[in-house]
Amino acid sequence: MNKLQRLRALDTEAQLVTNIGAVLGWDQETYMPPAAIDGRAEQLAFIESLAHDKQTNPEIGDLLLELGSTAQNPLGDPSLPALDRSYLRVMRRAFDQATKIPSAFVADMAKAISLSQAAWVKARSDNKFKDFQPHLERMLEFNKRIAAFLDPAKRPYDVLLDRFEEGGTEAQVASVFTPLRNNLVKLLDTIRARPQVDDSCLRRFCPEADQADASAYLMRILSYGSDSGRLDKTAHPFTTSLGPNDVRITTHYHEDFFPSAAFSTIHETGHALYELGIDPSPEYKRTSLAQASSMAVHESQSRLWENMVGRSEGFWSNHLPEFRRMLGTALEGVNLDTYYRAINKVEPSFIRTEADEVTYSLHVILRFELEGSLMSGDLAVADLPGAWNDGMKRLLGVVPPSDAQGCLQDIHWSMGSFGYFPSYALGNLYGAQWWDAMKRAGLEPEQAVREDRLSDILAWLRSNVHKPGSMYKPDELVRMVSGKALDASYFMAYLNAKYARVYGF
Amino acid sequence: MNKLQRLRALDTEAQLVTNIGAVLGWDQETYMPPAAIDGRAEQLAFIESLAHDKQTNPEIGDLLLELGSTAQNPLGDPSLPALDRSYLRVMRRAFDQATKIPSAFVADMAKAISLSQAAWVKARSDNKFKDFQPHLERMLEFNKRIAAFLDPAKRPYDVLLDRFEEGGTEAQVASVFTPLRNNLVKLLDTIRARPQVDDSCLRRFCPEADQADASAYLMRILSYGSDSGRLDKTAHPFTTSLGPNDVRITTHYHEDFFPSAAFSTIHETGHALYELGIDPSPEYKRTSLAQASSMAVHESQSRLWENMVGRSEGFWSNHLPEFRRMLGTALEGVNLDTYYRAINKVEPSFIRTEADEVTYSLHVILRFELEGSLMSGDLAVADLPGAWNDGMKRLLGVVPPSDAQGCLQDIHWSMGSFGYFPSYALGNLYGAQWWDAMKRAGLEPEQAVREDRLSDILAWLRSNVHKPGSMYKPDELVRMVSGKALDASYFMAYLNAKYARVYGF
Repeated sequence: MNKLQRLRALDTEAQLVTNIGAVLGWDQETYMPPAAIDGRAEQLAFIESLAHDKQTNPEIGDLLLELGSTAQNPLGDPSLPALDRSYLRVMRRAFDQATKIPSAFVADMAKAISLSQAAWVKARSDNKFKDFQPHLERMLEFNKRIAAFLDPAKRPYDVLLDRFEEGGTEAQVASVFTPLRNNLVKLLDTIRARPQVDDSCLRRFCPEADQADASAYLMRILSYGSDSGRLDKTAHPFTTSLGPNDVRITTHYHEDFFPSAAFSTIHETGHALYELGIDPSPEYKRTSLAQASSMAVHESQSRLWENMVGRSEGFWSNHLPEFRRMLGTALEGVNLDTYYRAINKVEPSFIRTEADEVTYSLHVILRFELEGSLMSGDLAVADLPGAWNDGMKRLLGVVPPSDAQGCLQDIHWSMGSFGYFPSYALGNLYGAQWWDAMKRAGLEPEQAVREDRLSDILAWLRSNVHKPGSMYKPDELVRMVSGKALDASYFMAYLNAKYARVYGF
Repeated sequence: MNKLQRLRALDTEAQLVTNIGAVLGWDQETYMPPAAIDGRAEQLAFIESLAHDKQTNPEIGDLLLELGSTAQNPLGDPSLPALDRSYLRVMRRAFDQATKIPSAFVADMAKAISLSQAAWVKARSDNKFKDFQPHLERMLEFNKRIAAFLDPAKRPYDVLLDRFEEGGTEAQVASVFTPLRNNLVKLLDTIRARPQVDDSCLRRFCPEADQADASAYLMRILSYGSDSGRLDKTAHPFTTSLGPNDVRITTHYHEDFFPSAAFSTIHETGHALYELGIDPSPEYKRTSLAQASSMAVHESQSRLWENMVGRSEGFWSNHLPEFRRMLGTALEGVNLDTYYRAINKVEPSFIRTEADEVTYSLHVILRFELEGSLMSGDLAVADLPGAWNDGMKRLLGVVPPSDAQGCLQDIHWSMGSFGYFPSYALGNLYGAQWWDAMKRAGLEPEQAVREDRLSDILAWLRSNVHKPGSMYKPDELVRMVSGKALDASYFMAYLNAKYARVYGF
């Protein structure tokens, strides 16, 4: 066995252990009896610790060095094929991230997160930001130390961003988000000047069983779930990879608002199709190269299918009749135009996860701006509620009536996750840029959707975006696929055209 | 940490890994997408190998020796408390069984089993015993070698029996099975002389969803499943422990014969209640002491609940009205007497797993007698089909029309499992002996069932049978609880009284 083969074998075993942890996690969220929770926590802790041991095996470090991969030159020996060099880059990155942060620190942070999350749950329920404030301050400190462990020479927020979007920096993200923000605010103003859309047709009672049938239908027409996936019900929808050919999604059902389940199903199906489509080459199956390029690229897949396909008129011109049949009285007498406009209603609201396609990115940009200011020290944690409300007013024109519906709404910061939020909006931009690249490749995706050739879109995404996995950094991927760096103009052009139609301007 | 604490810690970690394997196995049988099978096999192989490493950790062997536990004196240091000494016995036994059989042999046997099982499936489907014969011969040879590894001084079949029924020998089992066999044949003759019962009321169409409701109802009235268990659907029903407070059962549904699901659910619930009831003491939770005393004692729990409770008139006098409501037309107009007699119809048949309460043990005794003869060499594998058919004629008065319905029907031998079959019938005997012990303790279980005080029966079983786990060998347990050695007379007295009522003699 040569050094690369040995490295792949060690990596594959670490992936296998991670997948076993995913089985335990999936079961916990779906079918585990409630009293099993303590035992399951021990099982998960055991598997996570084992996965960490596998990932930080010193032999991996030795092999990387022997193959010429260092922090300065992660790609290693220049004589190696490109695929192998990408693999060394990915492994060097993962190994450094796993080994540079001391175990004692990780354990301390885990304890602090556990307290912080409990405090956040209570503070949100009591609407008392002050009670959460010291925990948020600790989470910020932990993140600054993580950044210092990983790369003390860089700006801390840049180091944190890079964990989720390789190569991303605050300046680069801001250069994309600033025009996006300005244009979204402008579009939102235009929309608000128009008569509001009536979406009452989406709010009729719809039994969970009918919604489950509809979700199964959506999965089927999107070519997902027959033999390598499945759908289950959880409190919050998610996608998880339990092993090769085993990527599962979940959804939730609200009987007074069926689109929540339907669009969650399409969203998570987009994530699952990405995971299932990754296939860098036989020897890199089941390695770290068979993973997403970045969290934002992952989000581009869920949001492209959910919004650009799933909320399009062409899509529903084909599938509304079947939906009407499955959902019975819930959609009785609702015509395509009414339905299409209803599912695309734009309305500034307080909660990110419930936001429409136009306002969603503004929620994210607010969090990005605040994270940056918190991390640089320009904003004190004590001043977060005021800054949040100011930002909401400035970007969305609404002010939340409480911190519970404001700066306490998301779980991310309470669990010490900084630098993740931008992925949600970057995903929209990548998605629109893939869409445009399809057009320039002659695929005409709108027409494919209208003609119910969704598999043409999937095939294009598979060969251009899914297949290479993490062989390319997100910036390399977008330049290769679209010929350009990431840019908000594609997404804005898509939104402007779509909402001119929905709101008639 | 003292030596016993250290031993418990090593054991608990091995149990935890085994439980993780059970999660993977449960998922594979219930919800795993079909294409995931190869990846899951690798995950299971990894976990099983890790569990084996944990169980055979040489430190366990050192600790056992330091605590005075050897093959000759497994209980160890006589000054230790009884509970600790039982624990040493259990650990010595498990350690020896895991370490005395060489890994290379285990791997060879695993490969041979895989070929044998495939050959068995085909031979059964083709009804060609000859094609399976060489595999069965190999399985016998492997088992003789296992016996020689474990204890070359003992008769091989005694060594194999002891793996499932600690302390059991062929002579001891025969001393119980011989009167059982003779009395069962006599009872069967009496029953066959009476007019046959009509069970057509059990064969009306009954939708799966209604049967699932009925299973949920049965679990509920048996105090199982609300927070530490659950029921799912699989090809073959089973019970599995996934961790502390997490014991799950499965069932299957036949829409033209609902009792199959209902009684499987009660049967597996009996197993699950045992697993959940084991609680030897705080320090022995999650160790090997928190396991069943033997496979036969396990089977006593499933069969006691399924047959002595679940097929009793008292039980259905309370629950038939609700069943009639849940199953609608499937039970419309069926009165208690008709129903009670129908679910207790006795009819010699070819297939063990479909046998009634009277003939079931005869199927098992046949296998026990044949296993013993195969192992001693008195019976050649080539002569098995003839011996099988002779035995069926002698015990049940019927001869299977094919080997597929005869000596090829069970999976056990094809997977190299010899010595397990007796547990199925021994379970009936233990069950009846517990029942009698309840009576002598003043509980009057029939009356408790009639008065719908099932929890009184469960409470007695918990404190007398479940709680000690494997602290006592099965023979010790039965003497302690009933004051006597295992004996077929309790089971026969129960059957004679019951079937005199069912068949009116």
